[in-house]
Amino acid sequence: RFMKHLADRMPSIQPFHVMALLARARVLEAAGLSIVHMEIGEPDFVTPQPVIDAGMRALAEGRTHYTPAVGLPALRERIAAFYAERYSVPVAPERIVITPGASAALQLVMAVLVNPGDAVLMADPGYPCNRNFVYLLNGEPLGIPVAAATQYQPSVQQVRNAWRDHVRALMVASPSNPTGTLLEPDTLRALYAEVAAREASLVVDEIYHGLTYDAPAVTALSVSDDIFVINSFSKYFGMTGWRLGWLVAPPDVVPEIDKLAQNLFLAAPTLAQHAALTAFEPQNIAILEERREAFRQRRDYLLPALRELGFHIPTTPGGAFYLYADCSRFTDDSYRFSLQLLEEAGVAITPGIDFGLNSPQQHVRFAYTTSLESLQEGVRRLRDFLGQ
Amino acid sequence: RFMKHLADRMPSIQPFHVMALLARARVLEAAGLSIVHMEIGEPDFVTPQPVIDAGMRALAEGRTHYTPAVGLPALRERIAAFYAERYSVPVAPERIVITPGASAALQLVMAVLVNPGDAVLMADPGYPCNRNFVYLLNGEPLGIPVAAATQYQPSVQQVRNAWRDHVRALMVASPSNPTGTLLEPDTLRALYAEVAAREASLVVDEIYHGLTYDAPAVTALSVSDDIFVINSFSKYFGMTGWRLGWLVAPPDVVPEIDKLAQNLFLAAPTLAQHAALTAFEPQNIAILEERREAFRQRRDYLLPALRELGFHIPTTPGGAFYLYADCSRFTDDSYRFSLQLLEEAGVAITPGIDFGLNSPQQHVRFAYTTSLESLQEGVRRLRDFLGQ
Repeated sequence: RFMKHLADRMPSIQPFHVMALLARARVLEAAGLSIVHMEIGEPDFVTPQPVIDAGMRALAEGRTHYTPAVGLPALRERIAAFYAERYSVPVAPERIVITPGASAALQLVMAVLVNPGDAVLMADPGYPCNRNFVYLLNGEPLGIPVAAATQYQPSVQQVRNAWRDHVRALMVASPSNPTGTLLEPDTLRALYAEVAAREASLVVDEIYHGLTYDAPAVTALSVSDDIFVINSFSKYFGMTGWRLGWLVAPPDVVPEIDKLAQNLFLAAPTLAQHAALTAFEPQNIAILEERREAFRQRRDYLLPALRELGFHIPTTPGGAFYLYADCSRFTDDSYRFSLQLLEEAGVAITPGIDFGLNSPQQHVRFAYTTSLESLQEGVRRLRDFLGQ
Repeated sequence: RFMKHLADRMPSIQPFHVMALLARARVLEAAGLSIVHMEIGEPDFVTPQPVIDAGMRALAEGRTHYTPAVGLPALRERIAAFYAERYSVPVAPERIVITPGASAALQLVMAVLVNPGDAVLMADPGYPCNRNFVYLLNGEPLGIPVAAATQYQPSVQQVRNAWRDHVRALMVASPSNPTGTLLEPDTLRALYAEVAAREASLVVDEIYHGLTYDAPAVTALSVSDDIFVINSFSKYFGMTGWRLGWLVAPPDVVPEIDKLAQNLFLAAPTLAQHAALTAFEPQNIAILEERREAFRQRRDYLLPALRELGFHIPTTPGGAFYLYADCSRFTDDSYRFSLQLLEEAGVAITPGIDFGLNSPQQHVRFAYTTSLESLQEGVRRLRDFLGQ
């Protein structure tokens, strides 16, 4: 009776298909089976103790009221200082907006830019929510099919070819989910020049910054003030469940973002904001750097192991905690393959369908968000499953 | 250079005008002046200790990862049990979606219902964000001017008169912000019948439930399963900064809400969800009931005191912590009046302009979210300011 009244955008918005796999994995686990989880997009580590302790202090001090919509002034200043320390890029605290997760930051940016019917260019494969933020606003996400030749990042030529009159923004992510690849600084500059020349906006997702294993990532803020940069406390800082991220916006746009944030979110969680002040302290960063080293070891184990099994992974991803693998040697239906792998071998991975329309049936994503021992067990199970 | 590219919705979305007053109040306070705050829409009380303690336990247990998008199963079950205990209304836990604040719940409902160009009916004066959730989706908020004769709630006749073909939903709030008035159960039933007959949706904001002083509020869930009900841990439970609310949706719509919540928010803050499990425990409810009694005493002091000063408050608001006052005996510009009151007397209140287009210049909102002593001081200052 009710469903026929839903808004037109709803059929375009897809659930995460991996959720069905995850639900099935939980059922198998409840029945006593062991599952190796290589599908989960968050660090396995609990938030480091210094931040937990800071959360407890904030609770003891009764920090339970709202903060300003754009966030605690001290946290905005601390993040600005972080840009100076880590990237040697000056960023005014006034340009930094604290958000309830990077999700809110992505939504704010899209809402400020996109009219119904406007288009947003983005890499395919890419983060599944990006296209849905555009659908929310009755815009049109336009995927740019990317491949290993350009490190799964859109090239200037591809952006030029894909451009249409109604494009308002280009979204890129470095490191990328699901591919873990980074944008070269030269490409970033060229993409900005291309987008700016068309009076459109560049939006750069830097939420996996910090989790890089070969060379540090360059922030788009070093290219121009006229770029929307999104970051998060979830991944490098290991604070997923706290729901805290931030946005750096061009100076003129901050008041517009502020009024939108007031209305859509009121403010980010207060406790998380107080705790996050401690996230930048040296003793916390030391823990994060140990974890980064653990992620690097996992990548350096899993990448050759999967290649040896016959998964085609043509580039070495420099960041995040994902390996995006061509599985066409084994299947032409990666969703079915993922389901079978779960049922028959107890290994959970994410099928390509969650990341776009660019040969999803030939790809799967492995997340190395579990221990090295668990990854080794996963590879053993994969080897048996593949009959090797 | 940048502003000309912003989306068309942005000029429609207004910031909270009280923020400018609040900023000025902070400047005055920083200069050493005393300000009586009667503008703030959150309880002055810190979150009760049992919930703080539960938050500390959750931190000690390392509860820092994501929860499911619709929330912790145990919390959904606890809220369902609360509906049975407090309202004697059976609600299946599967219909309850935990959200990052009631803000997210309001956004989810609007996004599921409203196409660009669709209209949503709502009381004017009303909660300022409601119209902006509609503008976000390029819909049209249609205010129904309400007055004391109907307890500042839309009547069935008003809804019928205001209806247009493109209306998809009616939003009501009971108790209401800014008027503190409740919907009569009969009116609620009649409004649902009217809306359902037009195959549209009824959305009921119950976020001030629990904060009622004359008779308890009736939940719209007792009227039909086919109503969207929004509630929050912010007001009665005193957990504003934790950013936690919930939505009860018609059963068929829950999967649609789930996929949207996955994409827009990922999940509500984990720590807040664990802590909220304790919010329903008897020792916590006992504290909340003491606070409710304090709010009642404040209302019972402030309402006659303001009337005696010459503010016209024709109804006795039965809930929330607001008094919505006609100030036309003193001014025909309530914003200017509020600014002068702040500058000259050190009393901060909210001008009517934040709540809609229905004679905002003749109205102001007083919040009794400060101690009785502070309210008494505010009334003394008002009396002097008004030359009485």
